[in-house]
Amino acid sequence: MSERIHATYWLETGDDPRRAADVIAGEQSSGTFVALPGETPELKARSGARVERLDILETVDKPSLPGGMKSGVYTRCTLELSWPIENFGPSLPNLMSTIAGNLFELRQVSGLRLTGLKLPASFAAAYPGPAFGIDGTRKLSGVTHGPLIGTIIKPSVGLSPEETAQQVRELVEGGIDFIKDDELQADGSHCPFDERVKAVMRVVNEHADRTGKKAMVAFNVTGDLDQMRRRHDLVLAQGGTCVMAVLNSIGLVGMHELRKHAQLPIHAHRAGWGYLSRSPELGWDYAPWQMIWRLAGADHLHVNGLRNKFSEPDESVIAAARAVLAPVMPDAPMTAMPVFSSGQTGLQAADTYAALGRADLIHTAGGGIFGHPQGVAAGVEALRESWVAAIERVPLEMHAERNPALRAALGFWK
Amino acid sequence: MSERIHATYWLETGDDPRRAADVIAGEQSSGTFVALPGETPELKARSGARVERLDILETVDKPSLPGGMKSGVYTRCTLELSWPIENFGPSLPNLMSTIAGNLFELRQVSGLRLTGLKLPASFAAAYPGPAFGIDGTRKLSGVTHGPLIGTIIKPSVGLSPEETAQQVRELVEGGIDFIKDDELQADGSHCPFDERVKAVMRVVNEHADRTGKKAMVAFNVTGDLDQMRRRHDLVLAQGGTCVMAVLNSIGLVGMHELRKHAQLPIHAHRAGWGYLSRSPELGWDYAPWQMIWRLAGADHLHVNGLRNKFSEPDESVIAAARAVLAPVMPDAPMTAMPVFSSGQTGLQAADTYAALGRADLIHTAGGGIFGHPQGVAAGVEALRESWVAAIERVPLEMHAERNPALRAALGFWK
Repeated sequence: MSERIHATYWLETGDDPRRAADVIAGEQSSGTFVALPGETPELKARSGARVERLDILETVDKPSLPGGMKSGVYTRCTLELSWPIENFGPSLPNLMSTIAGNLFELRQVSGLRLTGLKLPASFAAAYPGPAFGIDGTRKLSGVTHGPLIGTIIKPSVGLSPEETAQQVRELVEGGIDFIKDDELQADGSHCPFDERVKAVMRVVNEHADRTGKKAMVAFNVTGDLDQMRRRHDLVLAQGGTCVMAVLNSIGLVGMHELRKHAQLPIHAHRAGWGYLSRSPELGWDYAPWQMIWRLAGADHLHVNGLRNKFSEPDESVIAAARAVLAPVMPDAPMTAMPVFSSGQTGLQAADTYAALGRADLIHTAGGGIFGHPQGVAAGVEALRESWVAAIERVPLEMHAERNPALRAALGFWK
Repeated sequence: MSERIHATYWLETGDDPRRAADVIAGEQSSGTFVALPGETPELKARSGARVERLDILETVDKPSLPGGMKSGVYTRCTLELSWPIENFGPSLPNLMSTIAGNLFELRQVSGLRLTGLKLPASFAAAYPGPAFGIDGTRKLSGVTHGPLIGTIIKPSVGLSPEETAQQVRELVEGGIDFIKDDELQADGSHCPFDERVKAVMRVVNEHADRTGKKAMVAFNVTGDLDQMRRRHDLVLAQGGTCVMAVLNSIGLVGMHELRKHAQLPIHAHRAGWGYLSRSPELGWDYAPWQMIWRLAGADHLHVNGLRNKFSEPDESVIAAARAVLAPVMPDAPMTAMPVFSSGQTGLQAADTYAALGRADLIHTAGGGIFGHPQGVAAGVEALRESWVAAIERVPLEMHAERNPALRAALGFWK
C-alpha cells in the first residue's frame, strides 16, 4: 500500500459540508472547479485527495470570514484529508503547497485552520531533522538536567557590540546557561554582526576558560543564504555554540540550507507567528507548523510562555510545547527543545513543569532576572531554584525559605 | 539624513491608540514591555521606531480578534511607523522580522494588517529585482503587445508526462502563448519533473521550429534548493523559457537563491495567500507582500482575476494588479507582470483593461479555452480577440460579429 499524507482541518462552510470537503479535496489534488475531460475515475482514484473524516461540530448563522458563499447556516466540522505520496514525493515545500495552498481562498470556506499533520516515513528519510535537539543542546551547554536558564539581550536594538558584551559579562558571571539576540538584532550598522560575535565570545570564552562553564549564545544569523552561512562560520570559529534564525523571514529553503551547512544547534524564532495564527478561524495551529520546521532542522522552537505578555492563552502555549516535545513520527522522534519566553519568571516554573512532566526546555526571563534586587546572579539563581522546587514538587514559598535569592525574587516577581 | 523604512498598518486596539502605537513601535525596535535601564533617550532616538502617523478611523464595541486586552471600546486607525535603516540594513529577511514580526501577537492589538511599505534606495542596491519582467517576458514569448494568452495544465495532478505533452501539443497548435504547471504538480512519481519537461519541450520545440512561435511554459521547480537549481538547468537545457515557484512554500531565501541562479523568468505563485490575507483584520495586504517578492526577483505574480471562483472581491484583485505594475521605487521600477487566473474567460478582458489601462499581463483560462465548441485553437483566438476588443474599446458583441471563434465563445462563456 502506498504511503499517504494526512492533514486535519477545522472547517467552517456555508455549503453542504460533504460537498465542501469534496471541493477542497479536489482543489488540492487532481480537480478544479468544473469536471475535466482528463479527470477520469482511474486518475481520481490514483491522485485525488481522499476525505478520511468529516465530523460535524456545530452550526452558526454568520460566516467567520467574508467573501465566501452566502448561506443561512454555516457548518463547522473537523475534516481530515489524505493524499498519496506519489502526488509530490517527500518534499516539504510541495507539502506546503498541498496542505496549505489555495484551499483557504475557496468560496466554500468561511473558516479554515490546519490543526494536524501526519507524515509518512519517507519524509524522515528525506529530511534530517534537528542535528542537536535536547541531548545535543544539553551537551554543548553543560546543563545535564532541568531547564536551561536563559535571557534575551535588551534593549533589542541599539546597543553597540561592546555594550552588548558588557551585558553578556554580567550574565555569564551570574551563571546564566543561555542568552539570545533579539530577533530584530541581526547586522545593523550600529551593532555589526561580526563585531558583536567577537566581543561577546571574548567574554564567554574567558569565563569558560576560568570556570569551565560556557554559556550558549544564540546569535541571530537571519539574512540571505550567503550571509547566514558566513555568520554561522564566524560563530563557530569564535567558539560559539548556537545560531538563531527567524523561520518566517528565511522560509523553508533557507532553513533547510542552514541546517545542511550548520555545525551548531539552530535556535528557531517564530516572529510573525501572529499573522499565521491570531484569527482562530484561519491559518495554522502550532502542531503542524512546528513539525515542518523540525523536519527541516530546528533544534529549539519558541512557544511563548504561561501568563505571557502577548495574546496567546495558556492552553495554546502548553499544546505548542507538547507538540515540540512529541515525536515527529514513531521511528523518527526528531525532538526539539521548546523555548519559553515573554513575561516569564520563576512563578511559571511549577505550572509549566506540571503541564509538561519534564524540564527539557529553555526558560528565558528578562525583567525576571535583571530586576532582581540582589543583581543578575541572584536573578539567575532564583529562576533556577524555582525549577528545583517545581521538579521536587515543593511549594515555591517553602523552597524560598532555604534560598535567600529566591526569597528576594518572590518580593518583586508578579 | 539617514534612510528610513516606512510601513503602514490598519490597527484595531482596545488601548488608547497613541499608547498602542508606542507599544508597537517599541516592541518592533529598541523596547520591550517594561522600561529598560539601557534604553536611554539617546538610544531610543537613534534606534527606536517612530510613529509617523496615527489617524483614527472609527470605533467598535467588540474586538475583531480574541486574546487582546479587554475594553469597552476598540479604536480602528491607520498607523504609519518608520525605522532607521541602521537597525538591520537593507536585508529582506530582517525587514520581515521587523515589519511583520511579534507585533501581531501584542495584547494591545485586536486587529492588525500590514497595508503599505516604502523602502529606501539601499534595498534596490542590495536586491536584483526581476531579471526579465514585462520586457523580457515579451521578448522570450514573442508577444509584443496585448496580454499573453495562457492556460494551466489540468487535471492538476495525475497526468503522465506523455499525457501532459499531448495536452501541450493541442495548446501550442492552438496558438497559446503561455502554459503553466499546476502549483501542485512538481516531481511526483506519476509525472516526474525531468520526464515531463523533456516530453513537453519536445512538443514545444518542434512547434517552434515549424512555426517560429515558442510558447512559454512555466515548469514548477518548487522544491529544495538543489532540486530547484537542477530543475531550472534542465528546463534551460531543453530550450524552455520559464520556471515557476510557489513563494510561500520556498520562502524568501529560496526565492533569492533561485533568482541568483536562474537564467529564465520566474513565475511566482502565491498559493497559501489565503492564510495570510483572508481575515480582513489580520495579516497582509498584497501591495507590501508582492513588493518584497519583486525585490527578491519575481517576474510574474499571481493576482487572481475579476469575478474569480475564489473569495476575493474584484477591487482587491485590481489593487493587487496595480501594485504589481507600480514601481517598487522611483529609480528602481522592478515592474513585474501580473497573472490573472481563476474562472477567467474573454468576458473579463474589457473590465480588466479598463481598470489597469494597460495589457502587460498574463491572462490564463482553463475551461474558457478548453470548453470552446470549435476546439482549443478557437478558444485561444476567442480570448485573444476579446482583448483586441477591450484595447480598441469595442463592445464584445460588436467585435464578435467579425470573429466566428469569439462569436461561438460568447455562447458558452458565462
